[in-house]
Amino acid sequence: MKTELINIGNELLIGQVVNTNAAWMAEQLNMAGFSVVRITVVPDHHDDILQALGEAGKRVPIVLITGGLGPTKDDITKKALCEFFDAKLVFSDEAYQNIIRLFGSRGYPMTESNRQQAYIPDNCIPVPNDHGTAPGMWFEGQRTADGRRQHAIRYPQSAIYISMPGVPFELKAMMSDHVIPRLKEKFHPGAILHRTVMTQGIGESFLSDILEPWETTLPENITLAYLPQPGIVRLRLTGTGDDENRVAETVDAEIRKLEALIPEHIFGYDDETLEEITGRLLEAKNATLATAESCTGGYIAHLITSVPGSSRYFKGSVVAYSNEIKEHTLGVLPESLARYGAVSETVVAEMAIGAQSRLNADYVIAVSGIAGPDGGTKEKPVGTTWIAVATPEGVFTQYTQLGDHRERNIRRAALQALNMLRKELV
Amino acid sequence: MKTELINIGNELLIGQVVNTNAAWMAEQLNMAGFSVVRITVVPDHHDDILQALGEAGKRVPIVLITGGLGPTKDDITKKALCEFFDAKLVFSDEAYQNIIRLFGSRGYPMTESNRQQAYIPDNCIPVPNDHGTAPGMWFEGQRTADGRRQHAIRYPQSAIYISMPGVPFELKAMMSDHVIPRLKEKFHPGAILHRTVMTQGIGESFLSDILEPWETTLPENITLAYLPQPGIVRLRLTGTGDDENRVAETVDAEIRKLEALIPEHIFGYDDETLEEITGRLLEAKNATLATAESCTGGYIAHLITSVPGSSRYFKGSVVAYSNEIKEHTLGVLPESLARYGAVSETVVAEMAIGAQSRLNADYVIAVSGIAGPDGGTKEKPVGTTWIAVATPEGVFTQYTQLGDHRERNIRRAALQALNMLRKELV
Repeated sequence: MKTELINIGNELLIGQVVNTNAAWMAEQLNMAGFSVVRITVVPDHHDDILQALGEAGKRVPIVLITGGLGPTKDDITKKALCEFFDAKLVFSDEAYQNIIRLFGSRGYPMTESNRQQAYIPDNCIPVPNDHGTAPGMWFEGQRTADGRRQHAIRYPQSAIYISMPGVPFELKAMMSDHVIPRLKEKFHPGAILHRTVMTQGIGESFLSDILEPWETTLPENITLAYLPQPGIVRLRLTGTGDDENRVAETVDAEIRKLEALIPEHIFGYDDETLEEITGRLLEAKNATLATAESCTGGYIAHLITSVPGSSRYFKGSVVAYSNEIKEHTLGVLPESLARYGAVSETVVAEMAIGAQSRLNADYVIAVSGIAGPDGGTKEKPVGTTWIAVATPEGVFTQYTQLGDHRERNIRRAALQALNMLRKELV
Repeated sequence: MKTELINIGNELLIGQVVNTNAAWMAEQLNMAGFSVVRITVVPDHHDDILQALGEAGKRVPIVLITGGLGPTKDDITKKALCEFFDAKLVFSDEAYQNIIRLFGSRGYPMTESNRQQAYIPDNCIPVPNDHGTAPGMWFEGQRTADGRRQHAIRYPQSAIYISMPGVPFELKAMMSDHVIPRLKEKFHPGAILHRTVMTQGIGESFLSDILEPWETTLPENITLAYLPQPGIVRLRLTGTGDDENRVAETVDAEIRKLEALIPEHIFGYDDETLEEITGRLLEAKNATLATAESCTGGYIAHLITSVPGSSRYFKGSVVAYSNEIKEHTLGVLPESLARYGAVSETVVAEMAIGAQSRLNADYVIAVSGIAGPDGGTKEKPVGTTWIAVATPEGVFTQYTQLGDHRERNIRRAALQALNMLRKELV
């Protein structure tokens, strides 16, 4: 079942805003069994909007539109839709009550331009906007249940057009809660199931070498996508079919084969993060965590504390960028620094043990490395990284050679360290 | 001078990749004096590509195309272009030498599919790809200098078509170094000048209230854009005209008026970050910095250490998520914690002073707050935040009430703290 997206907004055409809405919509539609065959971005300009609406409806049966529904003069989508569907604006009490509810909850005074947002074309079905004042509009070329007239006068396509706000969180709630359920109900696109396997510590090309023999034996109704990010590769399995249970069984069977092929690289499923998983494992053990960071510069602590409720298990961190802090605050021995250097197995282990006792934590992650672009030597080039994990049973170390890109090195070192902790916790 | 973009690639239509190329291209084209009036995303599918090429060239004189130039079977853009322009593939020695150069520098063996990339349509001008194997292709409906024939046989438009790779860093170098200079040379779009003023600590709507009287007096050839991010609003002034020096003078004059209106909120120009600016100020003073972070959880240290060379002035950080670490590692008094609570002026000042002496730094940023979503009380709701900056002259504190979104609160608190440090440094 094919769809097209039309994203309306000048901000998208001057590079001010990246069109993340389109990617999110495409992903959601695909996961619901609808494909997106074209995305068109047009300015807040009458003729351009009308042209795009006309073209899309000739190609596909479903057209999803975002943007241009705000209360300001620039926003002309509703006017263009009225012209396209030969409609008049009528006051919608349903939409008005929603606006009143929102203004009440936020304590703002209602203005006339906000009241105007309750006017909608007379041949559309309003779609609730649970987080904003602009209602969505669903245009369908058939008589609706309550006898409203058909839209298809000037442009006699039978396509369904759905207009939604461009504000991302308003759009997302409207799509997920209202539009996609209605589309599924109407079109029954069949069962589609996605499961994502999260891997860390192995690059895409190495993964694909290992997985190729398995990949070629995948059943026809299962596809595999590699979704790489710095430090992480997500493997997404998509199964389709008529019977939801059968599809789920087939996907699960393939995931078990995949687990057997790369057991040490899988850390989670379905977009869970390492910081969430390690946090849950720590809470289950009633254990506490601290970090001692050199080259990662606080990034591991930042990832851990980005999880709500992390104060229940995270005690804190010492970011020991200078050797002085490694010595005085973490208790690293001056002899170790002098003899092995800050980026060494001995020093990273001493950082972990020092933080464990001084920050009084059950587990500690410590990292010391050369993030770059400067600071590399012949013996220790940029990317040289040592990781230690201190546990109640002892301290474990790992060496890894990262690349030459500072930001990516910081991220990869942090994820590798979190995954090393995870393995100690399970 | 109007342009359209056509981005080709299945990955853009399933939501796997966000179309950041389009936003970057639109920004670069706008800055060079070209406008983008439509962006079309189509799959790696023959008919869709041909249809999009035909439509765009009827609307605008310049069409920029990305994607589908790789060596694999999925990539069919070159084949589609050959059909569109009625061309034959010919071996380009110029393109081949570039491929050999790249493989040599990377030490990879050359494969037959890579050699195939040296074949280009016989009626295009190759555009050098300095970072990849796929050459760009410039199609122009006029006889080229060396007598190659016109392309305009099947589709008799006069538009220029430029096909480029979709790999972002290959595309960016090709656009910046080759395509935009050639377009400017050919079309002389006139002088265009952008300057960005970076502000912190004031929201978009408050800014616009203050700036509106000035904004309405802007000369006709100057436009203002508000570009908000969490914690920061960028104000971009764009000036156009025939005489580059006159445009620069006019823009500078308006920036001086702007500086007089909001002196305390401007921290920099042209996309400099607060972490870069404070780093430079510290280096100029030969001074050192440390952070003592509670609710920001290491994020300030992460921002500071994301700047290459930050080890010259950044000593480190104590992330004191637990009260225990606030006491033991930073020396916060137990009485202060008991009497005022962790989120208080007294405790944040003691954190700053403690870090200053214990981490031996000239300047310290300390933050304590309630990031949310939990942990708020009636007296101290989510968003309550205290910031302290310790300097050689003493310690300064600031209270701020942020919102209810954890991630944004962490970012806003970090930026506000860095800006407070900047003000103390200047």
